[in-house]
Amino acid sequence: MGLAVGANRLPDEANAFAQGFAKLCETMAATRPTAVNLFWAINKQKEVFEKTLPSGDLSAVKKALEEQALAIWRDDQQTCKRMGDHGAELIADGASILTHCNAGALATGGYGTALGVIRSAAKTKKVRVFADETRPYLQGARLTAWELHEDNIDVSVICDNQAGYLFRKREIDCCIVGADRIAANGDVANKIGTFSVAVLAHYHKIPFYVAAPLSTIDLDTLTGTDIPIEDRPRREVTHMADSQLVPDGVPVRNAAFDVTPAHLVDAIITEKGVVRTPNLQSIRQLFAD
Amino acid sequence: MGLAVGANRLPDEANAFAQGFAKLCETMAATRPTAVNLFWAINKQKEVFEKTLPSGDLSAVKKALEEQALAIWRDDQQTCKRMGDHGAELIADGASILTHCNAGALATGGYGTALGVIRSAAKTKKVRVFADETRPYLQGARLTAWELHEDNIDVSVICDNQAGYLFRKREIDCCIVGADRIAANGDVANKIGTFSVAVLAHYHKIPFYVAAPLSTIDLDTLTGTDIPIEDRPRREVTHMADSQLVPDGVPVRNAAFDVTPAHLVDAIITEKGVVRTPNLQSIRQLFAD
Repeated sequence: MGLAVGANRLPDEANAFAQGFAKLCETMAATRPTAVNLFWAINKQKEVFEKTLPSGDLSAVKKALEEQALAIWRDDQQTCKRMGDHGAELIADGASILTHCNAGALATGGYGTALGVIRSAAKTKKVRVFADETRPYLQGARLTAWELHEDNIDVSVICDNQAGYLFRKREIDCCIVGADRIAANGDVANKIGTFSVAVLAHYHKIPFYVAAPLSTIDLDTLTGTDIPIEDRPRREVTHMADSQLVPDGVPVRNAAFDVTPAHLVDAIITEKGVVRTPNLQSIRQLFAD
Repeated sequence: MGLAVGANRLPDEANAFAQGFAKLCETMAATRPTAVNLFWAINKQKEVFEKTLPSGDLSAVKKALEEQALAIWRDDQQTCKRMGDHGAELIADGASILTHCNAGALATGGYGTALGVIRSAAKTKKVRVFADETRPYLQGARLTAWELHEDNIDVSVICDNQAGYLFRKREIDCCIVGADRIAANGDVANKIGTFSVAVLAHYHKIPFYVAAPLSTIDLDTLTGTDIPIEDRPRREVTHMADSQLVPDGVPVRNAAFDVTPAHLVDAIITEKGVVRTPNLQSIRQLFAD
């Protein structure tokens, strides 16, 4: 990377710091090939780093990095709150909402995208939430259920395969999920199982909403087929703590994300407003305003 | 029940035996409100019991019960093999098959319904199986995967919410599941999550097959809405062995079965042949022949 060349001319301490920073960025980027606002944030920090390092004043560099990190964090909270306010208008009083995985305070700067919409709606309306447990890592059972329960929002946990049953019994009025990356055409990459929820919602004519900030929309990714899908370790599926769930020697598939095509998404809720019928045009318009 | 009246006139030993038998029938029946061939088998044993008990010869009663139990067992194996042979014709060479829960040797007399079809197909064709792990009780991960792996049939385990991803990638050519009860109109009650698989198959225009013996078809149950659905204990969802997966105080829903409407079922595979487009007429025809 470009940094290393400049860093070679710097004193040892700065050189070591630059190498450490580069390694940190690399490590962070490697955690999630599918998510895009992670790369956006890393790049923003890289820009500050490259701008401030030539001064040679390492404490100033660290301060600039910290200040921007805090600004991103505060900004994310504001973004989520604006998203929440826009999205809350889509939620009817008394609505029963299905969500998948965790798109809450624990996954963002503190308010959440999908759960931010639910939080905003819950301020003035009665809502009920079904949280898919979200196998294999159980972010719904462990994180979403905890967050909403702490906030005194009515939440029940279901196994992922119970959603269809509730749709059929007309116990779900809408679905809201987050996103790891949204392509320019509105295709949405999100936690594995999201696509199944979207198909079930479509079959039952129930609205399916995605809540995500503009930083999650990647205009350089034309369609969902261009989004890399992370395969996760076998052990996530075969074991739960020390309990073995799958016999030795049996293969597993463990893709961590899936892509929901735009035509199954009724609206994308962003901090700049709600995009109904997401497509190339409506999404580009968001950035033009 | 009618038995008790007759039993009152019998010697003490026979009376105690009759009470024990009645309690056993009751306990067995209470294990599964949704399954119907369980009740069918219990009733067959009751008939033998009521016919032989008046003789007062308890060892003859026990022998008659045991003989019929063994006959039912042998008959079930033959039934499954016939079902397997009929169903195998629906499986193309090289097919990739999705199954849900366990409808195998471990759930029947020893060959399986859905897995019986797969076993029969695998004798002459190359097949590949994806086994949904089937939360919360993991019959797919623990039983189906074990059975097929033992039989050297290519099987991979997936979390239930990964099926949609594989459908979308065109990695599934057909679905085969068992049934706990089939209504007279062809609606199918089976393990929770079956309905979601059927909707995904329908959306992707992939055939969805049900393999079940005639004893699973309940002509007295007109449609799927008349089938009682068993709710199972909370702890099945909230815990895995000693690991707690859901925070204290958060409610869960744990319906153990769902109903797939007949119009999503491409064929029902029975020991008497394959019923395409299951409905009131085509199913009644099965019993008329």
